[in-house]
Amino acid sequence: MDNELIIKALEYVDNKQFQQLKALFSEMQAADIQELFEELTESQVIVVFRLLPKELAAEVFVEMDSDHQEILINNFSDKELKSVLDELFADDTADIIEEMPANVVKRILANSKAEMRKTVNELLKYPKDSAGSIMTTEYVALRRNMTVSQAFELIRKVAIDKETIYTCYVRDTDRKLIGLVTAKTLMISPLDAVIEDIMESNIISASTMDDKEDVAKMFEKYDFLALPVVDNENRIVGIVTVDDAIDVIHEELEEDFAKMNAIMPNEKEYLRTGVFELFVKRIPWLMFLMVSATFTGMIIDSFESALSGCAILVAFIPMLMGTGGNSGSQSSVTVIRGLSLGEVEFKDLIKVVWKEIRVAFLCGLALALINFVKIMIVDKAMMGDEITVTVALVICITLFVTVLAAKLIGCVLPMLADKIGFDPAVMASPFITTLIDAVSLIVYFEIAQMVLGIG
Amino acid sequence: MDNELIIKALEYVDNKQFQQLKALFSEMQAADIQELFEELTESQVIVVFRLLPKELAAEVFVEMDSDHQEILINNFSDKELKSVLDELFADDTADIIEEMPANVVKRILANSKAEMRKTVNELLKYPKDSAGSIMTTEYVALRRNMTVSQAFELIRKVAIDKETIYTCYVRDTDRKLIGLVTAKTLMISPLDAVIEDIMESNIISASTMDDKEDVAKMFEKYDFLALPVVDNENRIVGIVTVDDAIDVIHEELEEDFAKMNAIMPNEKEYLRTGVFELFVKRIPWLMFLMVSATFTGMIIDSFESALSGCAILVAFIPMLMGTGGNSGSQSSVTVIRGLSLGEVEFKDLIKVVWKEIRVAFLCGLALALINFVKIMIVDKAMMGDEITVTVALVICITLFVTVLAAKLIGCVLPMLADKIGFDPAVMASPFITTLIDAVSLIVYFEIAQMVLGIG
Repeated sequence: MDNELIIKALEYVDNKQFQQLKALFSEMQAADIQELFEELTESQVIVVFRLLPKELAAEVFVEMDSDHQEILINNFSDKELKSVLDELFADDTADIIEEMPANVVKRILANSKAEMRKTVNELLKYPKDSAGSIMTTEYVALRRNMTVSQAFELIRKVAIDKETIYTCYVRDTDRKLIGLVTAKTLMISPLDAVIEDIMESNIISASTMDDKEDVAKMFEKYDFLALPVVDNENRIVGIVTVDDAIDVIHEELEEDFAKMNAIMPNEKEYLRTGVFELFVKRIPWLMFLMVSATFTGMIIDSFESALSGCAILVAFIPMLMGTGGNSGSQSSVTVIRGLSLGEVEFKDLIKVVWKEIRVAFLCGLALALINFVKIMIVDKAMMGDEITVTVALVICITLFVTVLAAKLIGCVLPMLADKIGFDPAVMASPFITTLIDAVSLIVYFEIAQMVLGIG
Repeated sequence: MDNELIIKALEYVDNKQFQQLKALFSEMQAADIQELFEELTESQVIVVFRLLPKELAAEVFVEMDSDHQEILINNFSDKELKSVLDELFADDTADIIEEMPANVVKRILANSKAEMRKTVNELLKYPKDSAGSIMTTEYVALRRNMTVSQAFELIRKVAIDKETIYTCYVRDTDRKLIGLVTAKTLMISPLDAVIEDIMESNIISASTMDDKEDVAKMFEKYDFLALPVVDNENRIVGIVTVDDAIDVIHEELEEDFAKMNAIMPNEKEYLRTGVFELFVKRIPWLMFLMVSATFTGMIIDSFESALSGCAILVAFIPMLMGTGGNSGSQSSVTVIRGLSLGEVEFKDLIKVVWKEIRVAFLCGLALALINFVKIMIVDKAMMGDEITVTVALVICITLFVTVLAAKLIGCVLPMLADKIGFDPAVMASPFITTLIDAVSLIVYFEIAQMVLGIG
């Protein structure tokens, strides 16, 4: 449905039918217009952006990626820049500034109103991942002794400049947060009721320096539309709205996806990320893991005489290492997600280990049994008489021990990492896999030497 | 902060100080009380739940997991059950029913009001992953010819039973959706303005059968608080609210985490999932991947004579397979996330492949060079004279080719899977890794035979 509008708009752009395009814009959402801009050339972006009505222009501007924003700013006259900036919320302006080169930042600040400049500068002071960095200062502030009808009057006056009017915050004279009133409460209360009597005074708030991920989790838990952010003295300094919380949830999960797969997180869209940039995000872990595989190489080398005594053992190395790796990452991913969701904590270590041991026992047993049958039927037929019952036993016992070790390592390491303050996601699959590889090889060869009497 | 309340509440429960507990509940959020219940024994749950005031009781009930809900329902008198059910929204009731055994479902339906029973039955008809299944039917419906003050009057009357009053929907006489008005618009409009004149008629809606994941994405894109759901004839049948959309976003991402790591998705919390249940979620993929590793075994077996000519080659198998696997999963995870976020589509295949080839070239080259140096210095010192320049060359050329192949497979397979309607997440790391393992081994041995003239 939206796509049709974008396709139509593209046609208008190509045919330079700007009047029709302008009319079409009134039917489109800001996010769709932003999608349209992604399809345009640089010079088209500049022309088409000027067709947008003032308020919509600002909305679309906020949705754009920083490359497009920079192009536009560089082509804006000071007057144009001012008119867009005037429509922006302080938190959006701060976000934009963070992505811009110094000369552009200067121009943005020079063309902002003094008050905005002050707010933006304050927002920029908060650390990158803090609640302060994602909050907005544009909230509705009520006084305790106002009546509902006075509150309505105030809201009506300021609504246009506030990010949300659905949760209003009640401040004491010293800006301390003492309550909140939802628009719903206002609407169902008598007009002469006093705010103090209808406000909720039992408020959940975040502190400016709280981790933004924790703040986002509070939205999930409590189903908030907005959350107040207070300083050390419980003075309200801003609010976080649910749309920003959703963005944080998303960003953090994508970061975890990247980290768990040995990629350094990247906030840009894949198709917009340069080849060299992708290379830089990917090579460190590849390099680290490649070099750490030196150990597995040395393990194999040190068992060379055992291997030459029973060459068929080599054929099962990939299966053993692969199954170990998969078993371990099943456990590590489960535990890492549990930690990140707050479902699992360090104090649950024993519970987790006990659970994983039992799961590993079942998995290991099932895999070993099936594998024994498979080796004696399929592999024996394919690879010949080198495969004896003893060889099959060595492989299956190793498999069982490997699965047990893998699941143990997979659950314990992330919890330890979390405990000592490391990011458990980084400990995931690839790193743990290297460790499991080493363990499974040692187990394999030791058992082989014991059972087969070789080496 | 919340934790303190929970700890205090636990104390009260243990000391049976129920009056104090009751007072404390008035300061606590439903989500925190639910957390408290998780720490209680079955009989404590039943006693403590009865202390909750009616409305809060329903809120807490909705937050609980289905095990606790079932315990409570089984211990409720019909009157108690009725009083909780009366406070629930239809979509929550439907969600609860979906998790309950048949006899409990019967009791729930028997104790629901006739109207609720009808709505719930309708909601239950929608497929599990559809927009219909997550929507609620409790929205505010306005008529086009109402005035703002009439709208306010209506909202005041029905607010308590509606899931949101911040977006009101304007229906024509035939229930067709013709517009929406936000509470903000109502609050800033003159009281005698007519709804038709202030409503937004250019509405984005979902259809009952749309995938709930697509619906959730629309919230992220457009920053909605609610989205109307319409039937084939554009009649509004319900709305989806942002809190439910957040839950869907979360659920789907957790599902992807599981699938990408060879686990069948599980909606339950880890610590609440039984050992056998975890086993069942994990064993299918482990089994499949173990059996599919037969191929790598056969490949190694078929090159046995080559290997016996140069035994040191075995020591580098884990490094080559590991680096291949990691390189491939970096690409596959990136592409799979891109597909799932809608940033990458099948029509971008050539662009993606070309980008991955260049990244792979850089990664492969860097890894091969470093590896050559490492082999000639570290490995030669550790493993002795078997390591010659030629052997190092064989390993590094294989490494380069493997990285190239791995990244190609990693990006192409998920896109093909998506194209033919398979879930790309299932194609991720473990499955692709098996393929890459096989490819890297073949490349290794072929290059070894060519360069070293063995086999």
